Amino acid sequence: MTSQETTAFTFSREKLESVLKRRFFFAPAFEIYGGVSGLYDYGPPGCAFQANIVDVWRKHFILEEDMLEVDCTMLTPLEVLKTSGHVDKFSDWMCRDLKTGEIFRADHLIEEVLEARLKGDQEARGQVVSEGKSDDKKRKKKVKEIKAIKLDDDVKEEYEQILAKIDGYSGEEMGELIVKHNIGNPATGDPLEPPIEFNLMFETAIGPSGNLKGFLRPETAQGQFLNFSKLYDFNNEKMPFASASIGKSFRNEISPRAGLLRVREFLMAEIEHFVDPEDKSHSKFDLVKDIKLNFLSKSTQIEGKTECAIKSIGEAVSEKMVDNETLGYFIARIYQFLITIGVDPSRLRFRQHMDNEMAHYAQDCWDAELLTSYGWIECVGCADRSAYDLSVHAARTNEKLCVREKLPEPITVDRLEIDIEKKKFGPKFRKNAGAVEKWLLARTECELETLQKDLSTDGKILVEIPGIEEKIELDDSLIHIERRTRTEHIREYTPNVIEPSFGIGRIIYSIFEHAFYPRPDDADRCVLKLPPIVAPTKVLLVPLQTNAEFKPIVKEISQVLRKEKIPFKVDDSGASIGKRYARNDELGTPFGITIDFDTIADGTVTLRERDSTTQVRGSVADIVKAIKTITYDGLSWETGTKDLKPFESKSEE
Amino acid sequence: MTSQETTAFTFSREKLESVLKRRFFFAPAFEIYGGVSGLYDYGPPGCAFQANIVDVWRKHFILEEDMLEVDCTMLTPLEVLKTSGHVDKFSDWMCRDLKTGEIFRADHLIEEVLEARLKGDQEARGQVVSEGKSDDKKRKKKVKEIKAIKLDDDVKEEYEQILAKIDGYSGEEMGELIVKHNIGNPATGDPLEPPIEFNLMFETAIGPSGNLKGFLRPETAQGQFLNFSKLYDFNNEKMPFASASIGKSFRNEISPRAGLLRVREFLMAEIEHFVDPEDKSHSKFDLVKDIKLNFLSKSTQIEGKTECAIKSIGEAVSEKMVDNETLGYFIARIYQFLITIGVDPSRLRFRQHMDNEMAHYAQDCWDAELLTSYGWIECVGCADRSAYDLSVHAARTNEKLCVREKLPEPITVDRLEIDIEKKKFGPKFRKNAGAVEKWLLARTECELETLQKDLSTDGKILVEIPGIEEKIELDDSLIHIERRTRTEHIREYTPNVIEPSFGIGRIIYSIFEHAFYPRPDDADRCVLKLPPIVAPTKVLLVPLQTNAEFKPIVKEISQVLRKEKIPFKVDDSGASIGKRYARNDELGTPFGITIDFDTIADGTVTLRERDSTTQVRGSVADIVKAIKTITYDGLSWETGTKDLKPFESKSEE
Repeated sequence: MTSQETTAFTFSREKLESVLKRRFFFAPAFEIYGGVSGLYDYGPPGCAFQANIVDVWRKHFILEEDMLEVDCTMLTPLEVLKTSGHVDKFSDWMCRDLKTGEIFRADHLIEEVLEARLKGDQEARGQVVSEGKSDDKKRKKKVKEIKAIKLDDDVKEEYEQILAKIDGYSGEEMGELIVKHNIGNPATGDPLEPPIEFNLMFETAIGPSGNLKGFLRPETAQGQFLNFSKLYDFNNEKMPFASASIGKSFRNEISPRAGLLRVREFLMAEIEHFVDPEDKSHSKFDLVKDIKLNFLSKSTQIEGKTECAIKSIGEAVSEKMVDNETLGYFIARIYQFLITIGVDPSRLRFRQHMDNEMAHYAQDCWDAELLTSYGWIECVGCADRSAYDLSVHAARTNEKLCVREKLPEPITVDRLEIDIEKKKFGPKFRKNAGAVEKWLLARTECELETLQKDLSTDGKILVEIPGIEEKIELDDSLIHIERRTRTEHIREYTPNVIEPSFGIGRIIYSIFEHAFYPRPDDADRCVLKLPPIVAPTKVLLVPLQTNAEFKPIVKEISQVLRKEKIPFKVDDSGASIGKRYARNDELGTPFGITIDFDTIADGTVTLRERDSTTQVRGSVADIVKAIKTITYDGLSWETGTKDLKPFESKSEE
Repeated sequence: MTSQETTAFTFSREKLESVLKRRFFFAPAFEIYGGVSGLYDYGPPGCAFQANIVDVWRKHFILEEDMLEVDCTMLTPLEVLKTSGHVDKFSDWMCRDLKTGEIFRADHLIEEVLEARLKGDQEARGQVVSEGKSDDKKRKKKVKEIKAIKLDDDVKEEYEQILAKIDGYSGEEMGELIVKHNIGNPATGDPLEPPIEFNLMFETAIGPSGNLKGFLRPETAQGQFLNFSKLYDFNNEKMPFASASIGKSFRNEISPRAGLLRVREFLMAEIEHFVDPEDKSHSKFDLVKDIKLNFLSKSTQIEGKTECAIKSIGEAVSEKMVDNETLGYFIARIYQFLITIGVDPSRLRFRQHMDNEMAHYAQDCWDAELLTSYGWIECVGCADRSAYDLSVHAARTNEKLCVREKLPEPITVDRLEIDIEKKKFGPKFRKNAGAVEKWLLARTECELETLQKDLSTDGKILVEIPGIEEKIELDDSLIHIERRTRTEHIREYTPNVIEPSFGIGRIIYSIFEHAFYPRPDDADRCVLKLPPIVAPTKVLLVPLQTNAEFKPIVKEISQVLRKEKIPFKVDDSGASIGKRYARNDELGTPFGITIDFDTIADGTVTLRERDSTTQVRGSVADIVKAIKTITYDGLSWETGTKDLKPFESKSEE
């Protein structure tokens, strides 16, 4: 069934959510205690679906590219996240209601109030109010009542401009907007405190003294950066290479709604590909260069447009829309991965970050966005982070996080060098001697130049060294800085990092939407057309009736399936075949094996395909072989079953 | 190589740790920032080893037994852990040095000081002081210096008795011991504050208000209990069934040492098997009943002995040493799992918990303990927790967490029933009406009896209902309690829980010790004899030299191995074959494929086995087939290679 056919119906988020909850794909965590917003548990089918996606991810990225997988801790001390910038910058702005203490996320608040006013204006002008998709009504809106009040034309225009730029305001600017436009609690109109910054990391104390402040990691990347030297060493000092990590991360969202799309604890899969800054070509780029993708570039967005350009990744890189081959390679590989696990290609686009969205150090960044009933959702980020992360951690710790590469030809370089009178360091600096030396040797050319200048002016310099309380005084007798010409055989550089970063939960939810459709002949019978490779269960094994004669056959086929490691379920309940299949259509089970009276006679069984409900018949061995090749080797239903006999399907009721 | 052969050497923990760090199996987390004790990162081989163990676990338990896997959140609100008992009881006792603020775990402190005094006594008496294994010196001891001071005989005896019972003291008792025996800071002798209780859970605040206190889960079990009704429903209300969960848990250890054995963040795999309290038989018990195990029972320990009884699990259950078949079944399955992944059976015992070790509600509990250089380490717990967990959560939330089973024959029962005047509830209790009704309907027979008595005495009763601030008054006009005789078709019961709980990190470290040995002819060449099924990498592919002619062959064989999904590494460095194999012996890689000049001529390669270093020769297809059957089907090296030609091994240097 093509995507056109299955999307040619009014999608109902309410119906999908009811199926997902009824079949326990997921549920609010601690539900019997009233639940905690932003926390969800995955039940058996959700858990298996997630595990299968992770398994495909591992094979597609880690095994295929020989990446080095690591498993780092979630608990992270403050100092590390201070260096990475998360302590200072990983935050949202929130406003508190002075009376009730209720808390709002500032940007969401402004958005919601202004949207409500614009709707009120439309009503007042007698225009048809666009309600969006019918399900939008189901979203908990804080604005309870839209008042039909006409706005001045210039006010209306101003509101529209604010909404278009809502992601770009600073806290102060939002504070000004709130005052200027008299924005209060959306439900009551009561005044709010000015926006204050709220760090989104969960804080805790490590150890019994309470003095070592730590956080739950907001992403898995830092552990990979900190282990760079060990990984480089493990890789026999070959470049480029990538590390990868799959694990939970945490964000203390201010007011999480939108189900699985905005949660406080989530599974991430992240790759850090370390590459020579002077050579970002990729040896396997040719294999993907012809893949065509939907691109929404920076320049298109600046023009205020949202139409995607369709072109090959090869073209995108050669015309420098995508910065380099390695970034382009990963964008194409992300596409392949998403399509494999069930994303509808027509609802996938790659959107480039605007300059004000990116950190100052980022070279280029593209998000894989998936279209859902909540709009376009960022599900995978793919950024060239330059040498930022390794540089800041190296600077903070005075540990070298760099690559040493033998040059093909020696080169002559001219540079400042520092000589250290080691013998005098011990007596003078005692326990700090090592730290002072390490710090001095870690200075850049530019820093050495300043030190040299100060030293020649004053005869001595005073420096602050992280980890040492008092300032350190250095004079000519201790250090000497001089420009020298050297022949070098080694080139030393800090690698750049290309970082593809996957939010597994968001991908999972988007696939649910892309895969969900009602049977054309019965809107109440819904199907999740998950690809066999990621479907939680591959086969439903159903005896026609609760007949004792079927029992040994069920057991026998179960053993075959278990031996072949095909996840399956038996349903030998008394429900009708149709009911049993309908239940498993909702679970996304792609195949059904039916045991009937002919099975007793000749050992053949029927195999049903979920989406088309067509059936074929054959021996158990042939049927199992078809299931295996379709599920694990990616054959189509038609090819996988071409040697099996079509079976006249009786009504499923 | 049998376990006797490889353990017939002096085990060196120092050497093992050096290999594990050099090969980046694991490393202290945040090492370039100085590290945080109790936190470790797994590097590529450690991460792959862990993933393979988890994979075997999933197949051995979840797939084989059709368990329902769930993935629940780590963030857990206080209320849930208050109910489970963790907020009040999940703690250790700690003492603080008044001067320095240094913190000690009370039991470890007493142990260390008294052990040091006993050693001093031995020295003073001129006895040979047992130093333990040489590596023990490497453990950071807080007592810096053993003073040779002779103790009175009765003091010596008292110290020995205290040490034997050290796990059983309350905080108060430890405080008394510290005063009585004048125990101070082990390094300085300075006085300490009396022990105070320290809860081992990491605390955090959920949401921006800071009002919702939460913890990182100390185990994965609670999420499974809270989802019981959804799981029971998902299982089509069939009993018994099990849920399972694999994920990280957290304990804020006071002063973690002992490497991977005592960490603050760790991977757990837990099963909650829900069973009828009146029928704990297991349908598959017959399949395991003859497995012989080392048992250290409660009664043996009471006699002060530590010799294990070797008997079959069938005998152990039939003589009631192990409480029931289901518990026995899981003990045997735990044994099978541990042996499969590389535990030395001679260093594995099942120790029964003493009555004072178990929670009051536990019916029986056995730990799988593994012998390491740190002593016997608890790696898997297997407990019959009765109906405790479901009961406390049901009582706290007024949600039913129970099973309803159709009786084969209706029965007549005589019991107290409560009638509720629903119509009057709304007007009287308003928003609390639902909660009051729910609470009343959740009362036990015994509670109803008390209510009935009070009601008939006073004509009204005052009750406290969780979640409602004011006391609720009820009288005859609102409720009526009466004893009635009913015919029942349904039996309702709270299932009991059998809980096998695995500490994956501890198992991993123990296997490292069990698998580590030096080559008999060269003590500096060490091997990790990890079973192929769990080895991080299965095959090392080595061309004899860095000859260009070998390159296409390496590529070709790589493609075959990748297609067959066999994890492998290529080492085409210039190092000698011997060096390259030695590196991979330390990584536990079981097989090596060597490409030499004969390969160019006839396409054959040699296959080397890690432990015996024997080699065979054959075509690539035959060699790959041998690797697959030995690794994934469990064939021995001899059987798996019986059709291949023995190969005269040249020296590995």
